[in-house]
Amino acid sequence: MFTIKRIDVDAGEYTVILNSADAYEMGIRSLDRVKISSKKRSITAIVEISETMLSSGEIGLLTRAFSDLKEDIDSEVDVTSTPRPTSIEYIKKKMNGEELSFNEILRIIKDIVNKNLSNIELAAYISAVYTRGMNLRETKDLTMAMIETGDTIDFNKEEVYDFHSIGGVPGNKVTLLIVPIVAAAGYLIPKTSSRAISSACGTADIFEVLTNISFSAEEIEHIAERVGGTIVWGGGVNIAPADDLIIHVEYPLAIDPYSQVIASVMAKKKAAGVNRLVLDIPVGPNTKVATFELAKRYSRDFIAIGDELDMRVQCAITYGGQPVGRAVGPLLEAREALAALENKKVPNSLFEKSLSIAGMILEMGPMPAGTGRPRAKDILCSGKALKKMKEMIEAQGGNPDVTSESIEVGKYTHETLSDRVGYVDSINNKTIVKIARAAGAPKGKGAGIMIYKKRGMKVDKDEPIYTIYSDSKAKLDQAVKLGNKLRPIAIEGMVLETIKGSNGMDVYDE
Amino acid sequence: MFTIKRIDVDAGEYTVILNSADAYEMGIRSLDRVKISSKKRSITAIVEISETMLSSGEIGLLTRAFSDLKEDIDSEVDVTSTPRPTSIEYIKKKMNGEELSFNEILRIIKDIVNKNLSNIELAAYISAVYTRGMNLRETKDLTMAMIETGDTIDFNKEEVYDFHSIGGVPGNKVTLLIVPIVAAAGYLIPKTSSRAISSACGTADIFEVLTNISFSAEEIEHIAERVGGTIVWGGGVNIAPADDLIIHVEYPLAIDPYSQVIASVMAKKKAAGVNRLVLDIPVGPNTKVATFELAKRYSRDFIAIGDELDMRVQCAITYGGQPVGRAVGPLLEAREALAALENKKVPNSLFEKSLSIAGMILEMGPMPAGTGRPRAKDILCSGKALKKMKEMIEAQGGNPDVTSESIEVGKYTHETLSDRVGYVDSINNKTIVKIARAAGAPKGKGAGIMIYKKRGMKVDKDEPIYTIYSDSKAKLDQAVKLGNKLRPIAIEGMVLETIKGSNGMDVYDE
Repeated sequence: MFTIKRIDVDAGEYTVILNSADAYEMGIRSLDRVKISSKKRSITAIVEISETMLSSGEIGLLTRAFSDLKEDIDSEVDVTSTPRPTSIEYIKKKMNGEELSFNEILRIIKDIVNKNLSNIELAAYISAVYTRGMNLRETKDLTMAMIETGDTIDFNKEEVYDFHSIGGVPGNKVTLLIVPIVAAAGYLIPKTSSRAISSACGTADIFEVLTNISFSAEEIEHIAERVGGTIVWGGGVNIAPADDLIIHVEYPLAIDPYSQVIASVMAKKKAAGVNRLVLDIPVGPNTKVATFELAKRYSRDFIAIGDELDMRVQCAITYGGQPVGRAVGPLLEAREALAALENKKVPNSLFEKSLSIAGMILEMGPMPAGTGRPRAKDILCSGKALKKMKEMIEAQGGNPDVTSESIEVGKYTHETLSDRVGYVDSINNKTIVKIARAAGAPKGKGAGIMIYKKRGMKVDKDEPIYTIYSDSKAKLDQAVKLGNKLRPIAIEGMVLETIKGSNGMDVYDE
Repeated sequence: MFTIKRIDVDAGEYTVILNSADAYEMGIRSLDRVKISSKKRSITAIVEISETMLSSGEIGLLTRAFSDLKEDIDSEVDVTSTPRPTSIEYIKKKMNGEELSFNEILRIIKDIVNKNLSNIELAAYISAVYTRGMNLRETKDLTMAMIETGDTIDFNKEEVYDFHSIGGVPGNKVTLLIVPIVAAAGYLIPKTSSRAISSACGTADIFEVLTNISFSAEEIEHIAERVGGTIVWGGGVNIAPADDLIIHVEYPLAIDPYSQVIASVMAKKKAAGVNRLVLDIPVGPNTKVATFELAKRYSRDFIAIGDELDMRVQCAITYGGQPVGRAVGPLLEAREALAALENKKVPNSLFEKSLSIAGMILEMGPMPAGTGRPRAKDILCSGKALKKMKEMIEAQGGNPDVTSESIEVGKYTHETLSDRVGYVDSINNKTIVKIARAAGAPKGKGAGIMIYKKRGMKVDKDEPIYTIYSDSKAKLDQAVKLGNKLRPIAIEGMVLETIKGSNGMDVYDE
């Protein structure tokens, strides 16, 4: 029998610590597994060994193991050595380039969700999916396994619409226009969104400055059916929970295995009750999808998996070469989106992208081809979208009287001026994100960047090209320093004028 | 400034824990990296986040980070966010199937040795080498990188011999015969050996029952040059230290990437000053190398890498289908090896294998082809090998008067009888190991198994087939139970007699 000690560290896996003498006696090595049994329940955990932290006869349970075993400190438990989970054999099978069956994939995903795999084993799984890939059948089965190991939402409506951007472009606040437009047309669009992982801000980070975003599956169903649209944080519900655990391990490696991206998106949407989905796939350097070819491959496979899941999927391959609109950062983006809904001055890229995608969604419903975009424009320009947005904000517990002018962005600001005459040759998405994060985004809600000069635009010497906002003077200074070093907006001299002049036509209207 | 707290857990990597509010404020996520700087030195560590273990302003250093930063508890340090190491890019390059340059491989190995990589990143490296492989040039560079990141030994002698078994066969105590035979012939053979990881006992575990095995590089050099031979524990010196750190991560995945096996063996031998090496590659089910083809591929590549390192390498592909000799377990194997040196009754497989390999080593030196094995036999049978063994034991601080009869093996024993008449069809190496480990090996020095009936031998009903030894009654009982369940020795009935009779010729003399 062992006495429980609590060690308050969250290692992301079930971990326990044994005294080295006990481990030696039991023939247990670091990273072996033990079963810890109390009278009421038992868990399997991974062992780390300590020379001095615990006395012989004590077992230290890290946060997750402690809270799930539900025993008091100093109570007695039985500890026995157990073999490694069979899912490790399936991970090795994938490492060897073999195809996995549904049951093998389900076993892996179950062990991930039940925290039976260590970070090492999880990293091997991610690496194997990254290097060996999965065929469409496996990807579908992975999607099903991710759905099956979490909660699902069922709406009392036949068609449930949604929109998802596979990310990588800063300033992509289109959701805040699309959802109210589509909902105002009488469609049901219960959008779950995410917080920033490595970006400047996710849709959840933006919408959070306007209203509450954390709801249970039941509440989401209730609000969406009443108002027609929601924008809520997907992390607040237990939908496809394997995804977060997988992302935790992908993050340090900065990899996004192709099949895993598809399965994660599709599992979350399917589990959320969606059956009509438009996917935005931004293409460009420094986005998730670097080439048009890869974007087309994603499109084909998303649509094919959708077919298998009885979900109609359409993909919009969009321009991801520079930020969407001018604002990057939670409050700055909320302000820009509200201004668009209020029919104030709004960047063309935000306007065009939002209407095109909203139009696609409308045409996935009963509207005839060619009528979606004009209808979306009408809803936006008539103020119906703004009205719907206010309903959504209120239904989620926020203040519906908010306006773009009432929003207070970061009070510390610094304007950067051009040191030359020329044209904007490129804007580096990753650098923009770095600066916004240095200024405090996404946690610092007022932090971010306003970009005044976009690709192809003419710039005079000493003309403002961007302004950094922050809630903290120290962070502003850091972000300014970083901006001066990284130069997110590249301005080419006049020599290139004739070439840039014609290239710039695409976006000159910003 | 942060105040240092100590957390006595050895996570195998530099890990620190931050309060969640501080991490939030600094924009740091779990598994990000920080630089911790005191006045004297700085280290880079991986961050885990705790809600309640630490107060804001405190940083918890896990064992390795704490001991290497060399600061007191409650002293103040500076903590700043730092980017992930560039070696992660090279790991991704290998995951993508690209070839790595020497500098890229060296960067990875340096980051492993300096504990700059997390378990997740290390697992991705191992997985990438496993799935993508390395070509010979990369394998050589990996070997060089592993040598360069540790200590090396230089002997004052032109030819330095060694022997290494790539493992997987229980009872393989041949080193205890080979080293004294070769040393008695006047050759320098400073053998470094390892402890058991998943086997019943390593050579280091066996020799430890006879003398000390833990020495510094300088002491090894000194003893070997005086006596001619040593058998020491390789883990006691800082030779190719990357190996242990890599094994730590391979262990839970139970993988042994091909190129990594070659690089690890060759790096350790080269760094230990060896330039004449015989490799024993046991082939058989339940050994590391399952097929003859794979054994040949290993042989070719070991020899090719040897050429690049100015090391002459010869490989002996040996029979690994059942244990070598009859004894498995530290004291039981030491007793069997001593009995052989004392020219007492000794199993043929141990005798043959030891003499063949010793003969190969002798012929790598000045001895003409065909004279090595007879010379080895002469040294063994004349008692010269025993004399050398006693010198080695004494030089390493043990009692040279030890004899096979003075060795006391586990006092709790259980004899298993055959329940039928027949012939031994097969012996399962893995099952033998499991039973020996259940009995307490390798930590329980007296624990193990004596096998009386080997492949092809005739067995009567109620005749003893094996005896389990243990230092503990409880462990003996467990091991006996396991043996009865797993039946390590498969006995076929008389129907198969004629077939087995001829098959059995190979080994009937045991």
